[in-house]
Amino acid sequence: MRPCLTALCLILLPAQAAPDSLRDHALTLVAPLPKRVEAVDGLAVTPERVALGRWLFFDPRLSDTGQFACATCHNPATGGDGNRETSIGHAWQTGPQNAPTIFNAVLNRARFWQGWAEDLPRSGGSVLTVGAERTGTPARVVSVLASMPAYVEAFEAAFPGEVDPVTFGNFAAALSAYEATLLTPAPFDAWLAGDDAALTAQAREGLALFIDKGCATCHQGVNLGGNDYHPFRVRRVPGTEGQPESLSCFAVEEADGAAYLYRAGTLRNITLTAPYFSEGSVWSLGLAVQIMARSQLGEELGEAETYAILAFLQSLEGRGPEVVLPVLPAETALTPQPLPPLREE
Amino acid sequence: MRPCLTALCLILLPAQAAPDSLRDHALTLVAPLPKRVEAVDGLAVTPERVALGRWLFFDPRLSDTGQFACATCHNPATGGDGNRETSIGHAWQTGPQNAPTIFNAVLNRARFWQGWAEDLPRSGGSVLTVGAERTGTPARVVSVLASMPAYVEAFEAAFPGEVDPVTFGNFAAALSAYEATLLTPAPFDAWLAGDDAALTAQAREGLALFIDKGCATCHQGVNLGGNDYHPFRVRRVPGTEGQPESLSCFAVEEADGAAYLYRAGTLRNITLTAPYFSEGSVWSLGLAVQIMARSQLGEELGEAETYAILAFLQSLEGRGPEVVLPVLPAETALTPQPLPPLREE
Repeated sequence: MRPCLTALCLILLPAQAAPDSLRDHALTLVAPLPKRVEAVDGLAVTPERVALGRWLFFDPRLSDTGQFACATCHNPATGGDGNRETSIGHAWQTGPQNAPTIFNAVLNRARFWQGWAEDLPRSGGSVLTVGAERTGTPARVVSVLASMPAYVEAFEAAFPGEVDPVTFGNFAAALSAYEATLLTPAPFDAWLAGDDAALTAQAREGLALFIDKGCATCHQGVNLGGNDYHPFRVRRVPGTEGQPESLSCFAVEEADGAAYLYRAGTLRNITLTAPYFSEGSVWSLGLAVQIMARSQLGEELGEAETYAILAFLQSLEGRGPEVVLPVLPAETALTPQPLPPLREE
Repeated sequence: MRPCLTALCLILLPAQAAPDSLRDHALTLVAPLPKRVEAVDGLAVTPERVALGRWLFFDPRLSDTGQFACATCHNPATGGDGNRETSIGHAWQTGPQNAPTIFNAVLNRARFWQGWAEDLPRSGGSVLTVGAERTGTPARVVSVLASMPAYVEAFEAAFPGEVDPVTFGNFAAALSAYEATLLTPAPFDAWLAGDDAALTAQAREGLALFIDKGCATCHQGVNLGGNDYHPFRVRRVPGTEGQPESLSCFAVEEADGAAYLYRAGTLRNITLTAPYFSEGSVWSLGLAVQIMARSQLGEELGEAETYAILAFLQSLEGRGPEVVLPVLPAETALTPQPLPPLREE
């Protein structure tokens, strides 16, 4: 966890900072999106891996029932996420937590809401292996892929020199390579790079508030979040100490410790990725901003302040590359057929 | 229903017909794919309607739970169909029949396996309205669409001059316009247009058999099927008259009448759209061909004949336009939230 920078921000950033000072200060907390990502977890992003990863990302046959692809819950058409509080998965079960956006996710240092996949980078895996595991075992994924000659050739091209490249590790690596292309540069990046016209006056005001109030303490780095885990509800609403928590939409555990730590989500494309919070319990971005200010920072935001911050958040909505649906290889006689849709009662 | 043309075919087409005669004869039964479709059910296909229809086709928020889009079960990445015997839908229910491919579907005269939507063209609707109804009511679809200003603008652009263009009928019309772009010209079309090299010798042999055996009696027209409804199992396997049916994979009703009539499916892209038949009960295309020959035509196909027909069917695998995933408008405070994933027990 990072030290609390709020006090420092207050010293460095006067409320009436000139635009240049604001930019200079912002650059100490956040960073513009890179033009490209050359490697993920030490694995080079090559055109062949990106091409293969695009197939994998959109292939529903990798789930047990043939019904779900990565893109089902991390839908590039709708902000890269799932548009539900929690996604519906195998056997009509719902997950416990909101599916986060796939856009720019490759730049997150903290993956998954509560950090249970922090070991993935070290194991050479990818954020998406866990998603796939939910609806398909690694062994089944590999047997589906190995059954189609075009997939085998694509793995050979993506991982040259390997005797048997169709492995779950390479599946994850190719997915990561494709993810590395899903970057969405936004007006805020243009502004950080010096384009004064890229932010409205209201958005600049919102950015100043965002830093001044302390939001950037946790929502920092290139993704304005996605970097680390933090205690949820650092502060109670002033005057409510000792009283029962009123924000019943959060089912956080009250005990101290790891279970109480949540990832600060990325704010890039936050305007497209309702509903909000780890449970997807809030649909209004303005309300979400006010809840966070109150519960994490002890601040009651007024209407003008809230709208200014929303204008700043709007400047984080970016545009990625055109996402072209692949034409996937046809299954063969050796391809495992989808499992029947048994319910898990 | 069409009269049986088998006898006629046998007269017109000697087994050893020269390629030119074969083409001329084929053109009396089938037709090349049009370069474009200008209107569907009398409604003009305009760029604005196509653009709107692409949004609608990929928008999962039009289903009650926000989980299913048209593209979920009619997936352009996998041949335009669903890769399962029957698709999984709302509340983890499975449909009774196999989801057919969306590619070239706009050219089908007979829509749906058993004709229960034959009235749709007359009502100005579309093949897809029924699919949407399965997971969302028309009223809810309209209220979701009307909640997003960008959608309202897109409807206004697509249906200029209408006072309130966001209607379920226009939703269906825009989807049909997008569908009209999902055409997949194939090597067989090039051959029909005069390119001798577009078919292999084996595929030509398969085409001659396809006509000679009588397959083209039902699988005719521009989509080699999709044109009409026919009794399933016109003939029993010779020598099995009066005996119990052995092909237990078909759950057709034994009584005569409408329930016994099934659509002859399109054979375009049949190599990509396993599993086969209205129940999706057969995964091997070779087996499907042999079953149809035996049960419908009383023919036992040998191995060489089967492979020749498969080579012909391969020539029907086409390539459509690049399918670019849309960037959908964000939901607003007025957008109905997805319904909870209640099970229908």
